[in-house]
Amino acid sequence: MLEELKKRVYEANMLLPAYHLVTFTWGNVSEYDPETELFAIKPSGVAYEKLQPEDMVLVNLNGEKVEGRYNPSSDTATHAVLYSRFKDNPEPIRGIVHTHSSWATSWAQAGRGIPCYGTTHADYFYGEIPCARCLTPEEIEEAYEKNTGILIADEFARLEKDPAACPGVLCKNHGVFTWGKDAMEAVHNAVVVEECARMAAIAELLNPSIEPAPQALQDKHYFRKHGAGAYYGQK
Amino acid sequence: MLEELKKRVYEANMLLPAYHLVTFTWGNVSEYDPETELFAIKPSGVAYEKLQPEDMVLVNLNGEKVEGRYNPSSDTATHAVLYSRFKDNPEPIRGIVHTHSSWATSWAQAGRGIPCYGTTHADYFYGEIPCARCLTPEEIEEAYEKNTGILIADEFARLEKDPAACPGVLCKNHGVFTWGKDAMEAVHNAVVVEECARMAAIAELLNPSIEPAPQALQDKHYFRKHGAGAYYGQK
Amino acid sequence: MLEELKKRVYEANMLLPAYHLVTFTWGNVSEYDPETELFAIKPSGVAYEKLQPEDMVLVNLNGEKVEGRYNPSSDTATHAVLYSRFKDNPEPIRGIVHTHSSWATSWAQAGRGIPCYGTTHADYFYGEIPCARCLTPEEIEEAYEKNTGILIADEFARLEKDPAACPGVLCKNHGVFTWGKDAMEAVHNAVVVEECARMAAIAELLNPSIEPAPQALQDKHYFRKHGAGAYYGQK
Amino acid sequence: MLEELKKRVYEANMLLPAYHLVTFTWGNVSEYDPETELFAIKPSGVAYEKLQPEDMVLVNLNGEKVEGRYNPSSDTATHAVLYSRFKDNPEPIRGIVHTHSSWATSWAQAGRGIPCYGTTHADYFYGEIPCARCLTPEEIEEAYEKNTGILIADEFARLEKDPAACPGVLCKNHGVFTWGKDAMEAVHNAVVVEECARMAAIAELLNPSIEPAPQALQDKHYFRKHGAGAYYGQK
Repeated sequence: MLEELKKRVYEANMLLPAYHLVTFTWGNVSEYDPETELFAIKPSGVAYEKLQPEDMVLVNLNGEKVEGRYNPSSDTATHAVLYSRFKDNPEPIRGIVHTHSSWATSWAQAGRGIPCYGTTHADYFYGEIPCARCLTPEEIEEAYEKNTGILIADEFARLEKDPAACPGVLCKNHGVFTWGKDAMEAVHNAVVVEECARMAAIAELLNPSIEPAPQALQDKHYFRKHGAGAYYGQK
Repeated sequence: MLEELKKRVYEANMLLPAYHLVTFTWGNVSEYDPETELFAIKPSGVAYEKLQPEDMVLVNLNGEKVEGRYNPSSDTATHAVLYSRFKDNPEPIRGIVHTHSSWATSWAQAGRGIPCYGTTHADYFYGEIPCARCLTPEEIEEAYEKNTGILIADEFARLEKDPAACPGVLCKNHGVFTWGKDAMEAVHNAVVVEECARMAAIAELLNPSIEPAPQALQDKHYFRKHGAGAYYGQK
Repeated sequence: MLEELKKRVYEANMLLPAYHLVTFTWGNVSEYDPETELFAIKPSGVAYEKLQPEDMVLVNLNGEKVEGRYNPSSDTATHAVLYSRFKDNPEPIRGIVHTHSSWATSWAQAGRGIPCYGTTHADYFYGEIPCARCLTPEEIEEAYEKNTGILIADEFARLEKDPAACPGVLCKNHGVFTWGKDAMEAVHNAVVVEECARMAAIAELLNPSIEPAPQALQDKHYFRKHGAGAYYGQK
Repeated sequence: MLEELKKRVYEANMLLPAYHLVTFTWGNVSEYDPETELFAIKPSGVAYEKLQPEDMVLVNLNGEKVEGRYNPSSDTATHAVLYSRFKDNPEPIRGIVHTHSSWATSWAQAGRGIPCYGTTHADYFYGEIPCARCLTPEEIEEAYEKNTGILIADEFARLEKDPAACPGVLCKNHGVFTWGKDAMEAVHNAVVVEECARMAAIAELLNPSIEPAPQALQDKHYFRKHGAGAYYGQK
């Protein structure tokens, strides 16, 4: 069932080591199919070099396995909540990536969102990439992975951020989630977060009194690539 | 038309990922042909692994497409202005590169030019690699890419810098432009900027009271490789 | 004798350069066979690209060579002590790795243990990865490598740390030792230490007042992967 | 003439890009033949990927070309002086490497020698790797490359350092020279300097009040690999 979806999710997962975003099994990609309301996700703890497309696990929006010989990723409940919460958005989320990529995770460990210091960031993320707080001991105890998803969605609501305009988030002391209109775009955004995290860290070393890029420049670059007035690329 | 030029520009573009100067499509190379007063440039937003020599777009000095099935790079107007402004120089610019390479862009995000801390820098760039200011909201609104080129050229005039002796510039909160006597030399200089940006950043961490290299040493290295008294290499 | 053991140890050693954990011959892996009470270890100062499985040296728990045409690693006595001291643990150590991997060794040179700043660390190491003090001149003079092992084991006793829950240690001004239930798991943990060392260093630059991850989060991640309640992976 | 020497020097030169020690043509290796009192060195400014063994240039101790179709490296006079000054040492220098490797050059740009913070350093370099001052404008004007060699040799005399026990030096605002008993060992030491430079820089970030490794530990590691009591390796 959904062999094409599994194949795309497999290929997107294999890009994580290719882009140096994961060590061992520290990452996972999923993609959601709106017709069946299922998503395919990487199995838990299986080495990338042994993965096959048919190993992808099908899961419903309650985070329950529907098909597959393996257990799904231990982060499955987070994916399920994010699809549920963002599925009725004007630009719904159809792909999700989780990694512990080095520079972005360093920001998460530092408990800081990544400010928009330049156009590389502004081309993809409108404004700061936020860092969600740690879950409380009670939230961890009750349902760690599910509550991670709820926290992220609530945080975007609280910040009045559109997930389509800010397709990623840091989780304090943990790692990164990114998303997009499909699994491949979510991987693309994971690469962007890592590179922006790296350049922002170095830029702060070079100028301790650094400020975010001027709003007019952020607007120009974001809207050069997104929305009705976009003129970047071939479309 | 100009198939040799397109081939050279294609090959120079392909060096950007090979030298780890670009992620995805975040860079472009062009080369100018003084006979036809046209330049060939990478198409906008096309993945490097799919590029072919015939995909290069021919553009005139007004930044208008003359030939090609794709839209030219979104930064085309910047290239056009730089060729226009520097084409009558004693050592005219014939190749231009734009990247968001990590270390150099970090300096741009920090809003700082790269001081000449050593001979690696002095072998190619005479003095500091300047960082041009951000455009104003009005300049962005009116003609972002064109005004970026005008700002760079004006900045070199204001600083009384010869573009041949300082073949590159940072744009604040944005990225890097480098140039040279052809596309290949411009790529070469993009590599140099990135490496000098990296070593200058680390050197500042190691010595917060660092000073630029002595002028006599800068002169020695620059003129060992450039001008009438040069003796580096086989010429 | 013990050809399978030697083959496993050979393969684990070859992973050190593959994972960029060693330069030249600056590292070694061993694995202990509880039946014969011998361990196989890399020969001293032999280049990785020339190693063969049959070059692995068999050594007893006194650190004496039992079989092999080469001298064993100069760090053999440290391995022997660690196996001796940790062999009766509930989860005994069967594989040991020593490296000078860059980020972890930088922490060792700084004389600091690596705090647990996030879940990447907590997934494998329960609490801080400690940094053992330098040996005294007398300890160095008397038996440098053997006393290094004794110091590590004593330090774990003093800190009341279970070597199975904290499978690695830094040695001040020196490098890293990691271990595990076999050679391969010890190599795996060496990769983890290096990556955690890197992210912890960058996180401190980004937030000078950084604190370790909340204990509830550390517990959640460690026990999600270890012990009776573990649910990560396919077991 | 001296085809074997040229082949060795060629192979040693080719290791510089392989070990990521050079960008473009920013480095060179030579080896000295005591019988003929000539050394073979890389030609100036020739790309590594085009080099052939027969392109190596033979030069005498006055720095004059004796054989070869190319000009020798622009740094030839420095090599000639170092061979001349160190050829009657108990452990004479027979191979020399010059690079602008990133981390070591950053220390040189910071104008600082590399302190011995750990055993990785102490295994190869006894004590700090010194940083020689810049030449004066007069010294630069008179004979830049030759005076660089004289300065290095004088600095080792002034510091009472044995070049065999400290096989390398930084030149302020410039780069690195290393040496050894042949070209290959000089390359090996260039790798060591770069790695020690990297780890020392990170260690200082992690602990601003860091101190050099205790002398007893430095002695232990250096003499474990060098001199009559050495027991590292297979000899």
